[in-house]
Amino acid sequence: MRDVFVIGVGMTVFGKHERSLRSLGYEACVSALKDAGVKPDEIEAGYCGNGLAIALQGEAGIGQHVFWEAGIRSIPIVNLENACASGSTALREGWMAIAGGFYDTVIAAGVEKTVMPKGTPLNVGMGELEVRLGDVFPGYFSFAAQRHMEQYGTTREQLAQVSVKNHFNGTLNPHAQFNKPLTVEEVLNSPMIADPLTLFSCCPNSDGAAAVVLMSGEKAKKLGKKTVRLAGSALTSGTYENQKDFTGWEMERRAAKQAYEMASIEPKDIDVAEVHDAFTICEIIHYEGLGLCPVGEGGRFIEEGHTALGGKVPVCPSGGLLAKGHPVGASGVAQIVELVWQLRGEAGKRQVPNARVAVAHIMGGNKGSDTRACTVHVLMKD
Amino acid sequence: MRDVFVIGVGMTVFGKHERSLRSLGYEACVSALKDAGVKPDEIEAGYCGNGLAIALQGEAGIGQHVFWEAGIRSIPIVNLENACASGSTALREGWMAIAGGFYDTVIAAGVEKTVMPKGTPLNVGMGELEVRLGDVFPGYFSFAAQRHMEQYGTTREQLAQVSVKNHFNGTLNPHAQFNKPLTVEEVLNSPMIADPLTLFSCCPNSDGAAAVVLMSGEKAKKLGKKTVRLAGSALTSGTYENQKDFTGWEMERRAAKQAYEMASIEPKDIDVAEVHDAFTICEIIHYEGLGLCPVGEGGRFIEEGHTALGGKVPVCPSGGLLAKGHPVGASGVAQIVELVWQLRGEAGKRQVPNARVAVAHIMGGNKGSDTRACTVHVLMKD
Repeated sequence: MRDVFVIGVGMTVFGKHERSLRSLGYEACVSALKDAGVKPDEIEAGYCGNGLAIALQGEAGIGQHVFWEAGIRSIPIVNLENACASGSTALREGWMAIAGGFYDTVIAAGVEKTVMPKGTPLNVGMGELEVRLGDVFPGYFSFAAQRHMEQYGTTREQLAQVSVKNHFNGTLNPHAQFNKPLTVEEVLNSPMIADPLTLFSCCPNSDGAAAVVLMSGEKAKKLGKKTVRLAGSALTSGTYENQKDFTGWEMERRAAKQAYEMASIEPKDIDVAEVHDAFTICEIIHYEGLGLCPVGEGGRFIEEGHTALGGKVPVCPSGGLLAKGHPVGASGVAQIVELVWQLRGEAGKRQVPNARVAVAHIMGGNKGSDTRACTVHVLMKD
Repeated sequence: MRDVFVIGVGMTVFGKHERSLRSLGYEACVSALKDAGVKPDEIEAGYCGNGLAIALQGEAGIGQHVFWEAGIRSIPIVNLENACASGSTALREGWMAIAGGFYDTVIAAGVEKTVMPKGTPLNVGMGELEVRLGDVFPGYFSFAAQRHMEQYGTTREQLAQVSVKNHFNGTLNPHAQFNKPLTVEEVLNSPMIADPLTLFSCCPNSDGAAAVVLMSGEKAKKLGKKTVRLAGSALTSGTYENQKDFTGWEMERRAAKQAYEMASIEPKDIDVAEVHDAFTICEIIHYEGLGLCPVGEGGRFIEEGHTALGGKVPVCPSGGLLAKGHPVGASGVAQIVELVWQLRGEAGKRQVPNARVAVAHIMGGNKGSDTRACTVHVLMKD
């Protein structure tokens, strides 16, 4: 398996945009190409993650449109959907295409506009039966939170602290949707969505795009672009067999194990992480699933400040989904953009000093207590 | 690059089904697994092509649902969209995963239900602007037909003969949506859709699913399953630069060239082909694009009977999209199912004698005179 490097990254500001998907994707791709110092006609294949364009914008083949706008033409283009993990799946398919020896230079992008009529449920994770039963995200994750509180003594305040931390980080990130700090009280007193998850315990729907340029080790070395290596990649799906346990996901632990083994790292080596903090409880469970702290101690882990900037392993320095925003298919790629900036020392006021090992984690969809797609990627400064 | 074999195939009957996508996908996957003699837990990765589930059924992550129903769990699962080439793109990603050394046994499926309220346009190939301009498939392909008639003397009767041939083949295929023969007069006298394309010059919207099991050469050899090799795979996208020529697609010729080179074949070696006959004119142009006949001679090629069963290179023995039906994301995989049956000598009354080299061709979407995704796959009896 060949080495793969992330040689260029770019993203739009996340938020509400009165622009087309193509326009957002164009901006991200052109930024990534420029950052990589690569011309559009040097790209040999394109991978585009998107969850909802055919449903919300009536647009199929969004990757072809986005890449074409950026001057990337005639090459193999693949559109990928794995709910929230759509972008990270595009990244992984791009990684495989290089690691497997098919291409030397590819682009992976994620694009999404989630704007929809008010009151319309955003359906990105549910199947036919589940939707009819009303088993949608906030409901499911409120169960997870309730069980975690019951079983491990996790508190509402600890849950709220995740949002406080990520909204603070968002104030340091010019690409974030939300740039105002929040207090624990503000999180707790915001409107209840699904007890104990309040409005500010949930990520927003967002529009945005992100892109990365990947290159083989051989070529990157020749061109002097060997900075950040994509050292581990794992994609898992659910067994749907741990339905009795709402406080963790076996597939997440498995994905982490696979990616860490591939990269030859252990959890203690991780300097910075971006995780799928769609709801505050998620981030707490992901600490445990990724091995950043023991199972059941996620609540204390945030409370003790270990995942804040300046802590031992800052998590979601970008503001995460909670504050940076969550354009579904773009989030998995945007995590890589943030982590590359961190590893290159370009993260400005939210820089994690001397970061060398970074982990990106995202999950897509869910069914019962299990999820449909979980990706874990390990980036290393070479 | 490692050898890849198609060791099992399965599909549903195409047509109108009062069943869920999951149910259709289940049937195809279980058939393919049984045909391969492979248990669900031997599958290491799954690739699912689908164009419309999130838009028409409100269902994301369809691959996870379908594979789970078939007992395939916990593995990496990827959902792919490339309009009509969604299924063939899933096949190609599965092929890359094995050829690149990541897995030994994978499943690639295509599933689709295109049923929608009467009068709703099926939007699988257009972007925002094009839809608003009314640039939809029958309109675009009527231009292609008009230009081909003007430039090369192709006749309405020759166009109709494509439909007559494929509907006849459909009468021999128990998996086909349409099982009645048609005459040239019936095709010409059916309601006009977009001159010169009449109702029976257009493929139907269909429901259906198809699946194939792929295996590495090493493992297939060990298990005695080396029958049909996936010898060539190409995916191209458009340059959108040949807008003045509506009578052919550069990307199609390029995809064919790439796939033939990979498989070390020439057009004259092809014994049987399944092509993207969404409209009668398409099949005629694809003869030319695939090098089965010289450019401009596609009309004469069908008229002289070369592509009928018993002709020198039977095309669409399955009935093609015109008669077998066109469940968008499933069609690319169903072509492989048919060709594997042909190469194994299991095609019953529509068997092409001694077929050893087979080509599958499909295109997805279009913009102006160019298309968004074109795949060409070469299958060889080993």
